Amino acid sequence: MAVHQETIDVPTRGSGFVNVTAEVARVVANSGVRCGLCTVFIQHTSASLVIQENADPAVLRDLQRWASDLAPESRPWEHDDEGPDDMPAHAKSALARTSESIPVRDGRLTLGTWQGLYVWEHRARPHRRRLVVHVAGE
Amino acid sequence: MAVHQETIDVPTRGSGFVNVTAEVARVVANSGVRCGLCTVFIQHTSASLVIQENADPAVLRDLQRWASDLAPESRPWEHDDEGPDDMPAHAKSALARTSESIPVRDGRLTLGTWQGLYVWEHRARPHRRRLVVHVAGE
Amino acid sequence: MAVHQETIDVPTRGSGFVNVTAEVARVVANSGVRCGLCTVFIQHTSASLVIQENADPAVLRDLQRWASDLAPESRPWEHDDEGPDDMPAHAKSALARTSESIPVRDGRLTLGTWQGLYVWEHRARPHRRRLVVHVAGE
Repeated sequence: MAVHQETIDVPTRGSGFVNVTAEVARVVANSGVRCGLCTVFIQHTSASLVIQENADPAVLRDLQRWASDLAPESRPWEHDDEGPDDMPAHAKSALARTSESIPVRDGRLTLGTWQGLYVWEHRARPHRRRLVVHVAGE
Repeated sequence: MAVHQETIDVPTRGSGFVNVTAEVARVVANSGVRCGLCTVFIQHTSASLVIQENADPAVLRDLQRWASDLAPESRPWEHDDEGPDDMPAHAKSALARTSESIPVRDGRLTLGTWQGLYVWEHRARPHRRRLVVHVAGE
Repeated sequence: MAVHQETIDVPTRGSGFVNVTAEVARVVANSGVRCGLCTVFIQHTSASLVIQENADPAVLRDLQRWASDLAPESRPWEHDDEGPDDMPAHAKSALARTSESIPVRDGRLTLGTWQGLYVWEHRARPHRRRLVVHVAGE
């Protein structure tokens, strides 16, 4: 059994999605693990991880608008001193994922054909988001 | 430490829930792991995993209607070329889980008394959904 | 590789959040694992796990009100024989997490500065909630 960890810093361009599949796959390759589990963890509460369709970018635009309607800036949030986009960001991060686990087989992530792993930035402005990638297996 | 992986194909009957607890428990038994972790991963972005009450089927019907109201077909989705049920399915999969991890103790999943693990089909028509089950432990 | 499991019972005071970060960190310390993964699992379907901001308690109050508006008691739920707060609780648990995985490095959870791990009680009355904490690594 081998255990391997790396940290990835992901710059975002404000609210929306950044595909990190290739960078996480590179960590899996670095680990040398052939059969195991890769867990990705995001160290923030106003950005998330989500696995979504990697084909039509309209899917991501729809998700963005849908989540913003579920947790709108216009709602009378009590926590509003970090800007009108902050509390909606926390709400969206309660809805999407803070960690995601993907089995590794033959040294590769077992993602489906249409799956990509994304950092979902919920804040309006660009941020630098830190991921911890953990790979364990043999 | 042992690592064990199996793939399970789950036929669904259109939107709704399929209880896969027994099939996942069988993989845990096959693994021979007594103390460890079982991670289930679904290779799709229009169907999810969710752990829910296994007693009253009305709970699942309520969840289905509630999620369909949160992500309705009637919303003007930009991504609509795969049918009116496709983008609501992606939205629901952003809300429920793509992976679920359950500790294993004494060779069994440590699910609570009322917990069942379900594949949640979000598309209207039946599909075949693929799960990767990973078990690691001793 | 070491595998370590402990059960934690968390008393809640009715709907709201209980910070369990310190108790989970204690299990990680007990495990002796320096580099690994900690997975926390909640054995219930009307309470959740969620990682959220640990600084301003108004964030948690906002989350509570927001989730209650998404899954209101006033909705005509079919499953209503366990009280008006029961089905909203199941819906909220489909939205937040049943399991959460956090990498361990240098013997500590790699949580971000502002992250705390919470049990999110969705029922109106106090309950005793059981967590299974699994730590594996070297």
